[in-house]
Amino acid sequence: MTGKFGGSPRRTTAEMVARAANVSRAAVSRAFNPDAPLKPEKRARILKLAEELSYTPDRAARALVTRRTHLVGVIVPDVCSPWESQEIDALTSALQAEGFATLLFKTRTDFSMDETLLAYMRGFNPDSVIAFTENVRPHILTRFLDRAVPIYINYVMEGGTDGRRPGEPETLFDRIDVDQWEGMEQAVALLAGYGCSRIAYLCGKEDFLAEHARRKTLQALMKRRGLGSPVIVPGDFSYDAGHAGMLDLFRVGEGADAVFAANDESAFGALDALRYELKLRVPEDVKVIGFDDIAQSHWRSYNLTTVKIDLEARVRAIVRLILRRLKAPQAPALSETVRTRLVVRGTVG
Amino acid sequence: MTGKFGGSPRRTTAEMVARAANVSRAAVSRAFNPDAPLKPEKRARILKLAEELSYTPDRAARALVTRRTHLVGVIVPDVCSPWESQEIDALTSALQAEGFATLLFKTRTDFSMDETLLAYMRGFNPDSVIAFTENVRPHILTRFLDRAVPIYINYVMEGGTDGRRPGEPETLFDRIDVDQWEGMEQAVALLAGYGCSRIAYLCGKEDFLAEHARRKTLQALMKRRGLGSPVIVPGDFSYDAGHAGMLDLFRVGEGADAVFAANDESAFGALDALRYELKLRVPEDVKVIGFDDIAQSHWRSYNLTTVKIDLEARVRAIVRLILRRLKAPQAPALSETVRTRLVVRGTVG
Repeated sequence: MTGKFGGSPRRTTAEMVARAANVSRAAVSRAFNPDAPLKPEKRARILKLAEELSYTPDRAARALVTRRTHLVGVIVPDVCSPWESQEIDALTSALQAEGFATLLFKTRTDFSMDETLLAYMRGFNPDSVIAFTENVRPHILTRFLDRAVPIYINYVMEGGTDGRRPGEPETLFDRIDVDQWEGMEQAVALLAGYGCSRIAYLCGKEDFLAEHARRKTLQALMKRRGLGSPVIVPGDFSYDAGHAGMLDLFRVGEGADAVFAANDESAFGALDALRYELKLRVPEDVKVIGFDDIAQSHWRSYNLTTVKIDLEARVRAIVRLILRRLKAPQAPALSETVRTRLVVRGTVG
Repeated sequence: MTGKFGGSPRRTTAEMVARAANVSRAAVSRAFNPDAPLKPEKRARILKLAEELSYTPDRAARALVTRRTHLVGVIVPDVCSPWESQEIDALTSALQAEGFATLLFKTRTDFSMDETLLAYMRGFNPDSVIAFTENVRPHILTRFLDRAVPIYINYVMEGGTDGRRPGEPETLFDRIDVDQWEGMEQAVALLAGYGCSRIAYLCGKEDFLAEHARRKTLQALMKRRGLGSPVIVPGDFSYDAGHAGMLDLFRVGEGADAVFAANDESAFGALDALRYELKLRVPEDVKVIGFDDIAQSHWRSYNLTTVKIDLEARVRAIVRLILRRLKAPQAPALSETVRTRLVVRGTVG
């Protein structure tokens, strides 16, 4: 337990461990990388000796030489919403397997990513940064990154967009393109098949690319089928907004025979309002479709039909982008596409 | 955007920024600490110049001098379970406000925290590490920490425990003591008040301190009131286990007139099984109480009566422990206590 109090004045070096274990300096490094190939017995022996000598491969020191911190910054507005927490969970596992640790940065609740926080993040000199364009714009984030090329989650719309907004300077960033068209088309076809004619769209948070892309895509899909335009119900992705939105739609507005929610959590709020407050039957009186397919969507009380984003595929794509970019820092913008599909459960039928 | 590709060969120093801004070296450091007091105009001017000179206060470099990495490691089995995600969310906000970033480490799903992962974590040299004793035992974790004193979440039981298990060596770690007695006593009193005589306990994951402490505390509380022993229903904190547990209890076993679940999520599964599969009315036929008071517990489909752990108080206590420990690395074990209380909703009455 030497060095537990403030650390030993003189740190053990990898060379000292290599000598003690009678292995190469490289073997010592490999022993400390969970991902590097090494005979289990050899790794165990090296780690045991390293421990006895209280050696730690200080990444702070190594970072100065290799310019690799093995830190991946993830900028999120909120860790506790189901989708974000499930994505961070899967991403952390995947990054750990590649020898990276996840560094969490929370944006302010008003999503105004202030420059102090960006400068603060920059201080950790992450190897890569994953962000949602709603939280911080690429040209602003890039100004605050020393060398990391940010990865943005982009939601593709008809006509297409690279995530940049009019008038924004060209900056280098990599992209995950979530193609929502396929899954949403299946959803609209299902509703049409059940003869739904009056479809309401329960919005997500305003100014969110995901919200904007889902609304535009739904409008385009309904137009193609001659279903007119969706009834727009304000929302913010939350359970409570979904709940309140339904009370307004059915008590003040004209109601609807189907509700397409911008995410699953707000669909839960809509379902509960329809059943408990409005005494309507789902799916008999009103059909409900969500978006994401979070773990809670299979819960018996909701059993929600929803458009699934393949979380595993999305996480694998993000990790591929990070590794590709670290291999080729100079490469032009990289991108990967993630598809969506409809998962049919009990709220339509 | 200089240095965006691989970083500029020669880094700008804080002194260069101080000279350019005509301020002290200390003012430059303060400008980059979101928490440090500094006139907004002054901070803005320094950050603007730092940006123009593409200066970044490299914590990797500073860490070697100050031996502070400003990283707080959080070891969790799983980020996406509601309670953990809500705690990590609040903790990340609180730590950011103090100038720390949250470094996530996920344990293996079998909770066997393997030594490679610990050695890997040690490489990041965190200033502090927060862990749950189920994932890694104090004496093992401490061997892998260079200087950080770990903080453990401890669940107090009658008779008391400092979180150490029989035969484990004495090691220095700080502690959050969650006192479950008060809230659980209120829960048992409420059930007794409604004349419940046959109370089932839906278990959490075996070998979890939280599970062990909740079961023992419930047994002690029921004994005191002459309510006999709870019917033990196996579980693992998950929705699905709660759901399956009720089917076994009522279809194979003798049933119960009240169910106390080890956490809210498994209580949701129990509620859905009781209502949808077993066609029982809650609370008329069976009363249900959970533990945690996660955000989902107020959802209308569940509207769960539960024992609340004050998340904000718990997070504030953790941050206090980190700051106290960094001030006094040599201090003997520190601890803070977090209380619990019953939140009454619709599943008892």
